[in-house]
Amino acid sequence: MEHSAGLTTGLVPTMGAFHEGHLQLMRAARIENDRVVVSLFVNPTQFGVGEDFERYPRNLDRDIALAESVGVDVLFAPDTQQIYPRPGCTIHVPVVTERWEGQIRPHHFSGVATVVCKLFHIVCCDVAYFGQKDLQQCIVIRRMIDDLNIPVRFSMQPTVREPDGLAMSSRNAYLTPEDRARAPMLQQLLQSVRKAIKEGNCTPDQLDKWLHSASTKLEIAGFSVDYFECIDLEDAHAVRDISRPCALIVAARIGRTRLIDNLLI
Amino acid sequence: MEHSAGLTTGLVPTMGAFHEGHLQLMRAARIENDRVVVSLFVNPTQFGVGEDFERYPRNLDRDIALAESVGVDVLFAPDTQQIYPRPGCTIHVPVVTERWEGQIRPHHFSGVATVVCKLFHIVCCDVAYFGQKDLQQCIVIRRMIDDLNIPVRFSMQPTVREPDGLAMSSRNAYLTPEDRARAPMLQQLLQSVRKAIKEGNCTPDQLDKWLHSASTKLEIAGFSVDYFECIDLEDAHAVRDISRPCALIVAARIGRTRLIDNLLI
Repeated sequence: MEHSAGLTTGLVPTMGAFHEGHLQLMRAARIENDRVVVSLFVNPTQFGVGEDFERYPRNLDRDIALAESVGVDVLFAPDTQQIYPRPGCTIHVPVVTERWEGQIRPHHFSGVATVVCKLFHIVCCDVAYFGQKDLQQCIVIRRMIDDLNIPVRFSMQPTVREPDGLAMSSRNAYLTPEDRARAPMLQQLLQSVRKAIKEGNCTPDQLDKWLHSASTKLEIAGFSVDYFECIDLEDAHAVRDISRPCALIVAARIGRTRLIDNLLI
Repeated sequence: MEHSAGLTTGLVPTMGAFHEGHLQLMRAARIENDRVVVSLFVNPTQFGVGEDFERYPRNLDRDIALAESVGVDVLFAPDTQQIYPRPGCTIHVPVVTERWEGQIRPHHFSGVATVVCKLFHIVCCDVAYFGQKDLQQCIVIRRMIDDLNIPVRFSMQPTVREPDGLAMSSRNAYLTPEDRARAPMLQQLLQSVRKAIKEGNCTPDQLDKWLHSASTKLEIAGFSVDYFECIDLEDAHAVRDISRPCALIVAARIGRTRLIDNLLI
């Protein structure tokens, strides 16, 4: 288990159903490494009961062609039995998993952290690439790498968006045309709160009001909002003092689809 | 994070207070590797409330000299703040931690697994050496390596014993002269049960009786027995069918000292 002095390996962990966001991660890995490995594994342990594990989009042939098109060296697509031959060790990441996605999806981040740790070891990668769209996931993985001293460099890449601003996501495929038309509101409201923060006098009370107002606008438009918050990038706690690195995050359901997005401040 | 094609690194994780058992692990690592790293860290997270963390024997100068005497390249002796700068990730190892030491010392193996995983990553070792004396610990670490796909080879080395059969342990230093004189009974009774198994007609009922009888003899001699059992080497469950690889294990307290020992069948 040693960093090779010579060739470097970049890993892009994915659940498949590739879109431009995945391809950007692969391109970043391609530029920075000698070898690029993409893992494709719809990890059952990060889905809760009643979530979309069964209907999660799967299209291996298309994914293979897309990975090839951006110069990926290895597409690692194990089956569940290979990754979990028996009930195994789990990794618990404290603090940064307490709220937001971790609160709404109780075992989600333990499932994510465990499978990512396994993939790091299987692939023996030097760098791992994650998309900013799953911001709390990025915070969790970065924390796991630090806490367990994993010799892997973490690289967060910017969210890739549709022309109207909607963050690309495999789950966008679930949206009805009506819901798809309303989905860009998430990003629009994140932008408008950030604009208010930058231009206005951002007191804690004022920030509270802006967040609440954005959330209300989503509810009026037919979303069911799980959270619309401002969090610290280090510990993922809610903050009202924006002097440290922080981000606006939102999660909302529309129809049968749950969407998340975020914006760094 | 890659196995080097050239030089190999062997790690011996320890809590210091070196005795001949530790030195044997270091010698094994020395023979098999280009570089030998010994970690010395009295890990607080594997001690329970009321256990002997505070009084655990510490003698760094003596340990440095002993490590040097067997050709260790690096003695890595971090302080607690370096290993745990904040509340961090923990690794839960299921099944094999449910009974025996794991039952009596509830968070012990999670503490062990977590710190060992960290040490593997910090040292970037290829092989790790553990003593058979802590047999359940060996089973737990081997399980963690398998489950998390850690690219480290696990090497279990035989228990080193005093001339009268007592397994060497840093905790033997706690024994009063009277208790020290009785301590070899653990190994003697393990041997006599194994002899009975090998020579007799080992039905489940018969094995039950032998284990119970050995335990009673220890109690009569003044020990307080936590367990005297026959376990499967794979899942650490109690077994009465000895056709698969298994071991006899014992844990007993005498005075203020808790002793463990085992014997492979």
